[in-house]
Amino acid sequence: MSNMLEKICIIGSGNWYIILFIVTDNVNVNFRGTTAGKMISENILSFKNQFDQTVKMWVWEETLPDGRLLSRVINDARENVKYLPGVKLPPNLLAVTSLEEAAKDATLLVFVLPHQFVEKACMTIKKVLCPSARAISLIKGIDSSHHGSESLLLISEQIKSLLNGKIDVAVLMGANIADEIAKKQFSEATIGCLDETNGLLWKRLFHNPSYFCIHLINQVRGVELCGTLKNIIAIAAGVIDGLDLGSNTKAAIMRIGLCEMRRFCQLQDPDIKDELFFESCGIADLVTTCIGGRNRKVAEALVRTGKNIFDLEREMLNGQKLQGPPAAIMVYKIAKEKDLLDSFPLFTVVYLICYEGYNAKNILDYLSNHEF
Amino acid sequence: MSNMLEKICIIGSGNWYIILFIVTDNVNVNFRGTTAGKMISENILSFKNQFDQTVKMWVWEETLPDGRLLSRVINDARENVKYLPGVKLPPNLLAVTSLEEAAKDATLLVFVLPHQFVEKACMTIKKVLCPSARAISLIKGIDSSHHGSESLLLISEQIKSLLNGKIDVAVLMGANIADEIAKKQFSEATIGCLDETNGLLWKRLFHNPSYFCIHLINQVRGVELCGTLKNIIAIAAGVIDGLDLGSNTKAAIMRIGLCEMRRFCQLQDPDIKDELFFESCGIADLVTTCIGGRNRKVAEALVRTGKNIFDLEREMLNGQKLQGPPAAIMVYKIAKEKDLLDSFPLFTVVYLICYEGYNAKNILDYLSNHEF
Repeated sequence: MSNMLEKICIIGSGNWYIILFIVTDNVNVNFRGTTAGKMISENILSFKNQFDQTVKMWVWEETLPDGRLLSRVINDARENVKYLPGVKLPPNLLAVTSLEEAAKDATLLVFVLPHQFVEKACMTIKKVLCPSARAISLIKGIDSSHHGSESLLLISEQIKSLLNGKIDVAVLMGANIADEIAKKQFSEATIGCLDETNGLLWKRLFHNPSYFCIHLINQVRGVELCGTLKNIIAIAAGVIDGLDLGSNTKAAIMRIGLCEMRRFCQLQDPDIKDELFFESCGIADLVTTCIGGRNRKVAEALVRTGKNIFDLEREMLNGQKLQGPPAAIMVYKIAKEKDLLDSFPLFTVVYLICYEGYNAKNILDYLSNHEF
Repeated sequence: MSNMLEKICIIGSGNWYIILFIVTDNVNVNFRGTTAGKMISENILSFKNQFDQTVKMWVWEETLPDGRLLSRVINDARENVKYLPGVKLPPNLLAVTSLEEAAKDATLLVFVLPHQFVEKACMTIKKVLCPSARAISLIKGIDSSHHGSESLLLISEQIKSLLNGKIDVAVLMGANIADEIAKKQFSEATIGCLDETNGLLWKRLFHNPSYFCIHLINQVRGVELCGTLKNIIAIAAGVIDGLDLGSNTKAAIMRIGLCEMRRFCQLQDPDIKDELFFESCGIADLVTTCIGGRNRKVAEALVRTGKNIFDLEREMLNGQKLQGPPAAIMVYKIAKEKDLLDSFPLFTVVYLICYEGYNAKNILDYLSNHEF
């Protein structure tokens, strides 16, 4: 029986993951690691016959100032004394410093690391990949080095291609700001998975009816594209905030952005149904990202300070990266190649603002010259 | 030639209209009258061969403290000395105190008065109705006395039925907060009209590419339903704000509300396409109403104070009415009759909060027991 248990491996990236895993109000955290760790550890306790109860988490080793190793402290003291003393870690979460060791035998791979580390991690995992393994990516964003002008390689597709080319890779996206989930405030998310059985398994790992509702849909590419494209719209929304314009204008920008998101998704894959945009990964994630979110914040500062967006990224984000600009350049290249720039005026003007020195203050003049 | 000119009559309601027509930052205004007056007066100047340049506006007469009549002051001094001294009124806007006189010969009737006055106004207009007249309603909300349990009479339908039963009635809805439009900040709106020629005419009256973009769609009932149903969702959004929950939860509420809006619209009319919800009357109006808006504000106060929503309406709104509760009771009656309450948990819980003493603080417990 025990060899039929699903074995879970969370592929985070060392300290990045640890920082994110432990959340309080004081730490500016990304949703990803937190949710993966907290939810999976809690949820699988109810399914002892289905899941190996030890969740392995890949941690990049670090020596603490007192000479102890971070992984040891996590596993022995069940506490991260460096980043958040006093918070008890879940007992069934095991920090593993070797990715090979963590991923070996795992049948469920949860990718929660920044996209720039995906390639290297996959090269390692590939060596020990279990034939029955399935993966889910919680990574929003796009690796702009990985697309040609005509085609677009999403992170879920990159994972699939880097592993064995046939592993089923699902995605989880939605309106998920970290500290609110950590406080167990009601949230929703969308899991996109082409295989229904796998989809139900992933839902079991993440779904919690009282505070984290998962909707499962039979679509991967569209779900992931939404998680990428909304960051472009958030930059435009931040520009509107920087211009001190009101909610009519901001709602118009969000609406125009949603329409371009839908148009771009359906250009990439005509099978993507309008249904998708009514999911958490669609409209809900767009709303939160345009109201909160770092792309919005930096774009607002861009208007107020007149500085370059990448200088602000360095100044304001403590090493975190903006996902809007690389998404904008990706869309711009594809739309230009297809001679469809006129169908994406909002995406285009964000590209122009980020990369071509277009004055953000003129964003509405640019849009007024287009039909929506 | 001159007898072929379209003649415009704005059917506002006396001082209510005048208050709204003149906007500054200091006045808490509703979008309706302002936009109608400002935009039409400006826009028709460019189409002298198509529109009679005098826009008649029905004004309820009032004697000012100095003994002068309001209509005289408007027409002679071109200024509303009572409500907003110092603001020049458009020269081609003529205040008319007799509705019969204002509506006589008019071929384009613009309804901008509170819905409780629609019936009486229509009875008067009917006597002088021009056979070629068309109407547009800018009135959001619903008259809950005018629906049976199974059928639903929208305001555009009420106008049609009260006039001659065959007049073409369009609607204008969208994300339109008054003072932002008055400042000419970029906004959008949706005109729903079944007759394409008439639709283009209405668009000409309202469209201004630099700050007020009109999208014309071939659907009336759905456009008007969106303008009504979003107020229910705004009450739920206000409750979430009152509970100090974050943007994940609020985005989830807006998403669930949008899905119920779509479900209710398509229940009322299976021809309503998903397209509708991507328009300004759909997603954009929902966003602004859930972020600003008086329904949201009063619902937030409801949680914070524990008072009854109708007591708060009296205390907080200076005689303005909440549109969420009557919409909620309308939806509740229809859904209950059709045994479909389970399909509308968010609409239902808002009804329960407003009318049945359900504790707003338990809103998420209620929703958690339903599938979305």
